[in-house]
Amino acid sequence: MTNLSPTALTTDMLLEHWQGHRRLTRRVLQAFPEDELFTFSAGGMRTFGALATEMLQMIAPTMKGVLEDDWTSGGYGDPGPETKDDLLGAWDAADRVLAESWPKIPAERFRETANAFGLWTAPVVTTLMYLIDNEIHHRGQGYVYLRMLGIDPPLFYQRRPALAEPDDEGA
Amino acid sequence: MTNLSPTALTTDMLLEHWQGHRRLTRRVLQAFPEDELFTFSAGGMRTFGALATEMLQMIAPTMKGVLEDDWTSGGYGDPGPETKDDLLGAWDAADRVLAESWPKIPAERFRETANAFGLWTAPVVTTLMYLIDNEIHHRGQGYVYLRMLGIDPPLFYQRRPALAEPDDEGA
Repeated sequence: MTNLSPTALTTDMLLEHWQGHRRLTRRVLQAFPEDELFTFSAGGMRTFGALATEMLQMIAPTMKGVLEDDWTSGGYGDPGPETKDDLLGAWDAADRVLAESWPKIPAERFRETANAFGLWTAPVVTTLMYLIDNEIHHRGQGYVYLRMLGIDPPLFYQRRPALAEPDDEGA
Repeated sequence: MTNLSPTALTTDMLLEHWQGHRRLTRRVLQAFPEDELFTFSAGGMRTFGALATEMLQMIAPTMKGVLEDDWTSGGYGDPGPETKDDLLGAWDAADRVLAESWPKIPAERFRETANAFGLWTAPVVTTLMYLIDNEIHHRGQGYVYLRMLGIDPPLFYQRRPALAEPDDEGA
């Protein structure tokens, strides 16, 4: 592996970045009323429940692809959770897969080229960034849904674990 | 500077990542009809013209802060462009500032802590990532606006320069 330019983000920083986003997305999920989560949408788009299901179902197959170069879609596209509690549970399970898998990724793997799911050929880190970007993108759409429902969404810069921020949680 | 974990993204990769997102956001801007760009919104939110103005006005002051540790807000919050052509022109000008400034950032600067705009204290790379995230977040909201207007938005994974992708442009 040749470093053509200096380090912007280490693997630890990228994981923390993603996990911060996942904490924020979980807060957005929590902010939805149970029924609106699976029924409300705008412009003919998917519900936030469906968008969040997409996000979480990408984690395990991607980690398997990164670690084992097995890019079968296991679990992606399966029928998703049908209640808010189940969705939050599945969200947390995906978090655990991410936390357990990430430290096992060999350093050189991040810039190896892989054909992810037979869909695109790119450095592994680009595929990982795609998942993060996809989450931010669809979560931003969840913010619109919440606003349209008259609900104030969580602060965008709110990324820390809930237990570490009692003041923010009460705000 | 201590590397606690391996490199996930180099500075070149992070710039290319951001520029790819900026190309996509420009396509979203282009997809808006002139009047809807500055008038349409949902849920009491800002128009996409206002959101895009925020994105582009963050670039120059942030680059000045990163390069000179001068975190005054120069230009941010100024009245924005009032036509689509002017907005696209200002977008491209911000792209040039980004392209010219980025190579001047010293390698060690990315992980130095800075108090950005007196608002938050973080490693410089975290502030840069915040701008990218903010753009993805608000652009996702622009996708909802376009869908609500009955307009198909650009493909999310479409990040290459326009001239390099005649097939995609025609799709």
